[in-house]
Amino acid sequence: MSAVETGVGTVNIRSIQGSVGAPQGFRAAGVACGIKKSGAPDLALIVSDGEASAAAVFTTNRAQAAPVLVSHEHLAKSGGRARAVVVNSGCANACTGVDGLAHARAMAELTARTVGCSASDVLVSSTGVIGVQLDMVKVEAGIVDAGCQLARGGGPAAARAIMTTDPFPKESAIEAAIGSGIVRVGGIAKGSGMIEPMMATMLGFVTTDARVEPALLQRALVSVVNDTFNAITVDGECSTNDCVFLLASGASGVTIGEAELPSFIQALRAACEPLAIGIVRGGEGATKLITVRVIGAQSNEDARRAARAIANSPLVKTAVHGGDPNWGRLIAVAGRSGSAFTLEGAAVRIGPVELFRDGTPFDERSVEAATYLQGTDIEIEVDLGTGGAGRSHMWTCDLSAEYVRINAEYRT
Amino acid sequence: MSAVETGVGTVNIRSIQGSVGAPQGFRAAGVACGIKKSGAPDLALIVSDGEASAAAVFTTNRAQAAPVLVSHEHLAKSGGRARAVVVNSGCANACTGVDGLAHARAMAELTARTVGCSASDVLVSSTGVIGVQLDMVKVEAGIVDAGCQLARGGGPAAARAIMTTDPFPKESAIEAAIGSGIVRVGGIAKGSGMIEPMMATMLGFVTTDARVEPALLQRALVSVVNDTFNAITVDGECSTNDCVFLLASGASGVTIGEAELPSFIQALRAACEPLAIGIVRGGEGATKLITVRVIGAQSNEDARRAARAIANSPLVKTAVHGGDPNWGRLIAVAGRSGSAFTLEGAAVRIGPVELFRDGTPFDERSVEAATYLQGTDIEIEVDLGTGGAGRSHMWTCDLSAEYVRINAEYRT
Repeated sequence: MSAVETGVGTVNIRSIQGSVGAPQGFRAAGVACGIKKSGAPDLALIVSDGEASAAAVFTTNRAQAAPVLVSHEHLAKSGGRARAVVVNSGCANACTGVDGLAHARAMAELTARTVGCSASDVLVSSTGVIGVQLDMVKVEAGIVDAGCQLARGGGPAAARAIMTTDPFPKESAIEAAIGSGIVRVGGIAKGSGMIEPMMATMLGFVTTDARVEPALLQRALVSVVNDTFNAITVDGECSTNDCVFLLASGASGVTIGEAELPSFIQALRAACEPLAIGIVRGGEGATKLITVRVIGAQSNEDARRAARAIANSPLVKTAVHGGDPNWGRLIAVAGRSGSAFTLEGAAVRIGPVELFRDGTPFDERSVEAATYLQGTDIEIEVDLGTGGAGRSHMWTCDLSAEYVRINAEYRT
Repeated sequence: MSAVETGVGTVNIRSIQGSVGAPQGFRAAGVACGIKKSGAPDLALIVSDGEASAAAVFTTNRAQAAPVLVSHEHLAKSGGRARAVVVNSGCANACTGVDGLAHARAMAELTARTVGCSASDVLVSSTGVIGVQLDMVKVEAGIVDAGCQLARGGGPAAARAIMTTDPFPKESAIEAAIGSGIVRVGGIAKGSGMIEPMMATMLGFVTTDARVEPALLQRALVSVVNDTFNAITVDGECSTNDCVFLLASGASGVTIGEAELPSFIQALRAACEPLAIGIVRGGEGATKLITVRVIGAQSNEDARRAARAIANSPLVKTAVHGGDPNWGRLIAVAGRSGSAFTLEGAAVRIGPVELFRDGTPFDERSVEAATYLQGTDIEIEVDLGTGGAGRSHMWTCDLSAEYVRINAEYRT
């Protein structure tokens, strides 16, 4: 077990096998119902044995897809409770007007019938091409089929069924000692393959067997998403369909109150961080995972803004792709990020190699930094030089010619 | 002559030969002094015969290069007057500490000695690699040489000497009938070749023979820059060295007061717009010029924000590169831009082809749009659907694998 420090002490956390089915009280399934022409799996169900507390974060895009609108509405109606999550890939059900909205509602109703709950206890999610209507005959068959295949070990199949052009499925699960009991958290996610969809969609589905009231669960999710799913970028885009759902079955018997919340947040983060990083590793054309750390900022918000600017900079991403320890680009992006920045106190590190500090470049170290950049896991640290304690991080990937090929040759 | 409508009537404007030397009262030169290892021209002078009114806009990057700091200081000291502009390429003199600052001051002093004015009447500009000191022996020789070669016809040489890896020089000049006289405006610019520098630098140098007080000149420049140089993007970066200088000699005898200002702004825009567009056309790896127009916004600021998000979107830029009329990406980027957006009223046009309106996609028109995208000058229009009158535009280029190659293989 790895020990994680929290404000209230140490939480013992260890990785375990599985994903959304690992916590007690959940079953999952993934099936192929023909939405994708390739015949690949395209419909997933995650079902809680009893009513679960539910929390969700949604895309901030103002062009929200129908399933986003419906899930939002259902969560409000049920007061933060849910029994099931239904997800299709291959069609985003976005920009589809009133018909699309009816289709998203029908997905919830069909799932409710299969599971035996009310439609407002079902959360709906879609990913795929924008502007195309769902074939509801296929979707209905898929939901029935998935309902028959629901199983504790169904996580891997669900993880595959939510993929679009992700190069690999993203699953994680952990076990944490909280209070006198053991809590499990498991999740699946999909990321930013953009060959098939018109827009990358980031989806995350997380389950836990902790007993948590909806309001606390939402607080935990928002806190963790900020440091995990919201701390990644492949190309700075934000889709019409992004969402992360968290269901808590309570089946572990461990109750999370205010006192246990910091520990639960650590456990939740431990499950979500590998999913978020997995999305970046599987980014389009990505050959390297880049962790951008910003320190010396006047506030954490300033640090995040600078880290995001660096993580989205095509100049930085191409330089890392080419193995070029181009610290000047990092300084220039930090300087234009809008965050407080003091050139005289600024510093840049690429891996263990400090290349610039206090106005002095150390160009003799660039060979060492170039060697470091040959690796696949790259750490970049920029000190904004303000003397402040603000810090933040972002994960991103390099920008390759393959990214351009994937996105330019979409329909050719 | 093309007639341009202004708030005060019609201004007759026509293009003429030349650039910074076209307005009366200016001479220019461009020489090679060895800052660039290639031996290409790397030092330019633009000199006004007498003291000129001067206006400037500078990069908002907080990591400002030494020449930016010095030019800012000189303009304040001279009260908006200048005699000369000295520019070197091949070295940005950025992140160069106190030595860099001394070098920028020395460039002004050497130019002042050559021209016969005070150092505070000289504006200084640099572009090239960050973090490298200028070789002042070479710079001094270059300034002396350029001083000897100053000529009315020196604009083309100056335009070449400020290039880094720009594929072609950018020059323009116009003649406008204002009041009872003729005013000329000419300019040169350089853009975003980033093979040699570590960061794209956008420089613009504009002259006019109108007689304009510094305060009015500054207002005119800010107004025009907002719609021209600030309305372009190649990759969303903003350099440590960006600046646009405008010198007004008064040699035409035409005085610009409040009454003539709108006409003068039209004339200035007519000279600056082709320079700005030229920078985008010469963007790294660019094969297409993309004009992004946003309408139906709640304000012009909202429209600009959405236009900028679209113009910087790698998904949009790769789609245009690949000739894919991917309207879903345009809607999704507009939706996430932060500007007010109403999906129900939104619309997308690619060239003359409307692909989406009022929630309805017109996919049968995508072949026509794909044919249009085979061209090199692409117009995209997005209606944010709010019913507002806000509108704006941005110019950008497509994102090609060549862009990645250029920036990734920088030092290899």
